[in-house]
Order: sequence, then structure tokens, then C-alpha cells
Amino acid sequence: ANTLLAQTGTTIFTVMSALAAQHGAINLGQGFPDTEGPADVVRAAADALLDNRNQYPPLTGMPELRQAVAAANERFYGLKIDANTGVCVTSGATEAITACLMALLNPGDEAVLIEPLYDTYLPVVKLLGATARLVRLEPPRWELPREKLTAAFGPNTKLLLLNSPMNPTGKVFTPEELDFIASLLREHDAYAVCDEVYEHLVFKGARHIPLMTLPGMAERCVRIGSAGKTFSLTGWKVGYVSGPAELISLVAKAHQNLTFTTAPNLQRAVAYGLGKEDAYFASLADELQAKRDLLETGLKRLGFATLPADGSYFITADFSALGYNGDDVAFCRTITEEAGVTAIPVSAFYVDNPPRHYARFAFCKKNEVLEAALQRLERWM
Amino acid sequence: ANTLLAQTGTTIFTVMSALAAQHGAINLGQGFPDTEGPADVVRAAADALLDNRNQYPPLTGMPELRQAVAAANERFYGLKIDANTGVCVTSGATEAITACLMALLNPGDEAVLIEPLYDTYLPVVKLLGATARLVRLEPPRWELPREKLTAAFGPNTKLLLLNSPMNPTGKVFTPEELDFIASLLREHDAYAVCDEVYEHLVFKGARHIPLMTLPGMAERCVRIGSAGKTFSLTGWKVGYVSGPAELISLVAKAHQNLTFTTAPNLQRAVAYGLGKEDAYFASLADELQAKRDLLETGLKRLGFATLPADGSYFITADFSALGYNGDDVAFCRTITEEAGVTAIPVSAFYVDNPPRHYARFAFCKKNEVLEAALQRLERWM
Ligand SMILES: CSCCC(=O)C(=O)O
Ligand SMILES: CSCCC(=O)C(=O)O
Repeated sequence: ANTLLAQTGTTIFTVMSALAAQHGAINLGQGFPDTEGPADVVRAAADALLDNRNQYPPLTGMPELRQAVAAANERFYGLKIDANTGVCVTSGATEAITACLMALLNPGDEAVLIEPLYDTYLPVVKLLGATARLVRLEPPRWELPREKLTAAFGPNTKLLLLNSPMNPTGKVFTPEELDFIASLLREHDAYAVCDEVYEHLVFKGARHIPLMTLPGMAERCVRIGSAGKTFSLTGWKVGYVSGPAELISLVAKAHQNLTFTTAPNLQRAVAYGLGKEDAYFASLADELQAKRDLLETGLKRLGFATLPADGSYFITADFSALGYNGDDVAFCRTITEEAGVTAIPVSAFYVDNPPRHYARFAFCKKNEVLEAALQRLERWM
Repeated sequence: ANTLLAQTGTTIFTVMSALAAQHGAINLGQGFPDTEGPADVVRAAADALLDNRNQYPPLTGMPELRQAVAAANERFYGLKIDANTGVCVTSGATEAITACLMALLNPGDEAVLIEPLYDTYLPVVKLLGATARLVRLEPPRWELPREKLTAAFGPNTKLLLLNSPMNPTGKVFTPEELDFIASLLREHDAYAVCDEVYEHLVFKGARHIPLMTLPGMAERCVRIGSAGKTFSLTGWKVGYVSGPAELISLVAKAHQNLTFTTAPNLQRAVAYGLGKEDAYFASLADELQAKRDLLETGLKRLGFATLPADGSYFITADFSALGYNGDDVAFCRTITEEAGVTAIPVSAFYVDNPPRHYARFAFCKKNEVLEAALQRLERWM
């Protein structure tokens, strides 16, 4: 059996969701909405099943979805992407990330990863025989440590994996940080895999800027989007990679070994969804922001110190002022079992010496569910 | 960029489908039916979209589909599989194959592969840092060369990848061949990844026997099935791996890095489909057998020497008696461009020194389409 996988645990999201189910806890762990996506998008997927197009679609995706992804790149960011050669549709963003890493890394290459990091990044880099160079962001400010980032780049650096808006921190990288990253990529002739699944979940005061829009970056970046996150339909597992033709052709070759294609009816519904009016995207962010505010205010009231969350589904809360004595893993288990509320320990996103008194709470839930969770925590305390 | 992928071509199936489209040819290349799967299964998928279960399903699949896969193992083969720990649902069989290889291979391990081979096997083995030991079946008899197979096993052999019923040959491995393979696996303490996507597409006179049913094999085999093939809905990309809990837990860890999950509505529809009456499975095979007969008879009449095809979507035809002078790649291009019929060159399934006068024709098409293809070939000749 594969040694690396044998040593890897089951993803923390599955572990905590199972624990939540076992204890009937409100699951603010794994990041998925508890409401459905737009009814018209769901209806489009159902209709698309019924008109005889359920055989293999093209390898890089249905033409209508590739067009829609190219159009969204232009509409939201002014990016010019060729719908025929610059887009590859994948079976979710997890596959997209793996396909991009597979497309770009050779054994022995180095990949710069930023902690706290999503839990597929590191195993995939290792499975491909590449080496990870980790750069840590530290709570409570999650600032980019420029000297350490510079030091992580070297002659073997093939790519940086950048997640903005970032899970679990809710950080949206600033223009200055992106400039700095872009200058390192140019200097070291490196690529960037840009995990931007939360691109449309960004709140007032912050703005999502794809790294790809910066000077010299169009030919160096592959940019990953997620229909699951953009349409609150996380189970659909439709993702898309945009980038220059030479890189997308490699991503497609990885994709043909991973899943080959994605269900046509879901692709067609997502193509429809990406064409929705601006009001849809605005209200998606606004509603989520209101939920963030609700949970943030409530957690503060209970004595948590919350960290700023400018985007994504998540807010990080420091529980050290609560007088609880265990670490974050114990804390998340305890509140699941005793309070009936589940969160994710932030230490799960670090490889070594993690911070130990932060928990990540998902706020992509109905208001009454967030309120009930706060009440349960209050009762427990 | 990844050197191995950069050297790999776009899959032959995509290349030939694109060429077919360009020339308005009847596409008997890529293996997909030109009719839809059962209307009740499609309807179940559409209904399932509309009842608010479109968020992440569990990592290893929806409980109802895992139950259905376990029940099908018992019903068709008497195999006892635990629905909770012995099944992992994947986003198609391509992902399942990659997940199984990822789960079992360490860098430096050897994998025994049998040529002619499906085009994702070898790149994935190499991307994982493992080495392939190739054993060739030769047309026209596709017999298992026992001495060569024995010689391919050694101290570093981790697994054999067995595709039965086999693409592109249509071969269904015999009980004697399976016995021989099982004895090698026991002797060398090796695993088998059993790609059985065509398990229900087997014709009179042959019988599909999962290697897993042989003595000592239950703990050594992971067995891959495909809803796309079983329900003539190749675009859905729902696959499933069955096996012992220790191996399935590793497959699930690979899967969490590849796609994580598969759309719930498609999973639920496949769960429903697997419970269909025996008549469904029988008529699926019968109808396909009639199509094989139609194409086989027609190709013979035109002067092709067809090889036996006991299962799968495919029949191999020797075109050397036709007086055509080029190799199989040229032949498949020529008939696409000049006759308006597309086939796949069998050399695409070999690494070195392929046979050069065989083409693979897919017969999973409407009768009138097969007849029209035969007419076009006749006119061209
Ligand atoms: C793919 S399961 C995890 C969902 C998610 O992105 C998260 O909770 O961080
Ligand atoms: C995944 S595209 C190829 C379909 C197929 O299995 C074949 O044509 O051999």
C-alpha cells in the first residue's frame, strides 16, 4: 500500500462531519451551505438530463461552459481567455488543483505552499515526487512574511500555490501582497496555481484580484474556479481552470488521467448560471456577509476573539479567553460532544507546530441555524 | 511543465472523435452508445436534483449507492462486500483506476500491465514513480502468454492491472487464465486492480468471472465498476470500487485528493439503477450482442477478418486482406476522411512494436447507424 496515503488521515472535514452527525451537532465544520443554490440553475440541470446528451462530453468541457467561463473571466476581471484553448472543466476544484499540480510539477521540483493550507495540497505535491517549501501565515494577522516567502523560492521552484480568498483564514490577499508575489514569480520564472474557489464570496472593504491580472502573470497562472461555491451547490463537483493555452493543454492531459470528463447536464446548468445577472453575484456575497456578521458578533459576545474574515465561508475564532484548557482539537471535539456545535481545529491546516487555540467556524448556514449554534455554545459555557 | 505529460499525446479517443466531427464521419471510434440509458434512471437523476440534497455527499459515496453496489456484488457474483467499509464511489472508472493505483503503488514498485492497454494505465503508473512491466497479448488470438506473465512478476511486483472484459480486444478472460493469474498473485503476494467496467456487456458463450471470486483473491483485489457502461450513460462519470476494508480505506484517501465526491443526484439514480430487474441486465447484453453480430457480419462481408469479441463495446478487424497499403493509423484516418467512418487504430493500445493492421470498431450504436457505416465503407472500397 502507498506509504504516504497510509500515513495520511481521513480528511478532517469528513472526520468532523461524521462526529457532528454522531452527536447531532450543528455542523459549522465542513464548508457547505445548508440551503440549495438558485432554483433556476438546479432546474436547468434537471432539464438538461432529459434531452439526450448524457454521453461523454469533450475532454476539456462542453463548449457552452467553456464559453461561459471565458466570458466570466472577461466580465469580472477583464481577463481575455480563449474559450477553446484556455479553459479546462474538471470534476470539482479538488480535481482541478490536482490536475494543475500534475501538469506542472516534475519529480524533484519544489512547490511553495502557504500555511495554513487546504488538506489536499501537500499530499498531492508529495505523491508527484515534488518537494513542498512551506511558508507560514500566523494568526491573528495572517500577514504575508515577505522575507520568508522570498527565502522559500530558489532554483528548483516550479510553482507557488496561492489560495485567495483563503481557506481557513478568510484572508483576501491585498494588491501589495499580490505585487510582491508576482515579482517573485517573474524573478524565479515560476508558475502560480491560483485556487480562487471563493472568488465570488468576498465582503465589503475587500476586493478579489486574480493574480493572473498582474503584469506578466497571464502566461504564468492557472486560475481555478468552483461552481459548487459560486452557486451554493457543493455536491455538483464542477470546477474550471483558466489559463494560457500551453498550460491548459497540459492540465487537460492530467485531467484525462484523472476523470476525463464531467456530467454534461451539470456543465450545461453551470454555463447557464455563470451568465446570471450581476444582482445574483452581489446578493450571494451580501447574504453571506450578513451571516458572517451574525456569527462574528455572536462569538464575540460569548468571549471568543474573532479574526477578520473578508471572504470565503469561514471565520477563525481564538477561544483562549474562554478559560478552556485543551488544545484546538480537543476544543472542537468537546464542543461537538458537549455543546452540540462542530468547528474545525485550525491546527489541521498546519504541518508542524501549529497554533493551538483557534477554531474555524463556517457561517454559510441559515440564520436560525447560526443563532441556534450560538445559543448552544452559550448554554454549554 | 511535467515532462511525462508533455510527451503524452491527447487521448486517441478525443483525437479520433474530433477528426470524426470534422469530417462528418460516423464515429465508431470512442466507445459510447448513441442512445440514452433507461428513461427511469435518467428520470431518477432529474428528480433527485430537485429535493435539496445537492451539497457534499460522504467521501466514499451516498449510503444508498454503497448499499446498491454491495448488493450487486452479491447478486451477480455471490461476493460479500461491506457497504460501509468495502465500497468507494468515484467520479467515473477513470478516477477509480487512478485512485486504486495511487492507493497501492509506492515509487519504485512494479505494476504488471497487459497490452493492448487502455491509455491512462501507463502514464498514471509512471506519474506515481512506479515502473510498468508490460506483457503482450497478440492478435488474432489474444492468448495469455503464461511464461511471459510469470517472468513479469518479481520481488518488486506490487500489483497486476487486469481489464476483463477487455478493451480493445473484447476478450473475456477464461476461468483457466484467471486461475493462473490468481496463483501468481498468491505466490508473489501481489494485488490486482480489476477494471471490470464492461462486466455486464458479455455475450453468449462467455461468462464474466471477477478475479475477486477466486480463492485467496478477496483480500487482494479491488474491483472497478462503471455506471456509464452499465446504464449506457457514459457522460455521468459515476464509478465504484469494491474490495476489502483495508484497501478501500486507502482508495478513499486517494479519492479525497482526486475529486473528493461525486454529484449526489447521479449517485442516487445509479443506486436505483443497480436494483433493476434481471431482465434489464440481460437485454442490455442481448441488444449489444445483436449489434456486434450486425457489425461483425457486415465487416466480414466487406473482406475484413474480424476477431472474436465476447464482451465490451468493441470488435477488432484485420484490414490486411482489403489491399490497403498503409498502417492502422493511416487506415483509421483514411476511412474517416474518405469513407466517413471512424475507428481506432489498435496500435494506440501498445507501447512498442504494435501490430499494424487492426482497427477497433465500436458497435454500441443504433442498428441503422451501423448499417450506414457499413454502406459507407462498401462505397469507399
Ligand atoms: C471538500 S470537503 C471540505 C470543504 C471545504 O472546502 C472546507 O470545509 O474547507
Ligand atoms: C474515456 S473516452 C474512451 C472511451 C473508451 O473507453 C474507449 O473508447 O475505449
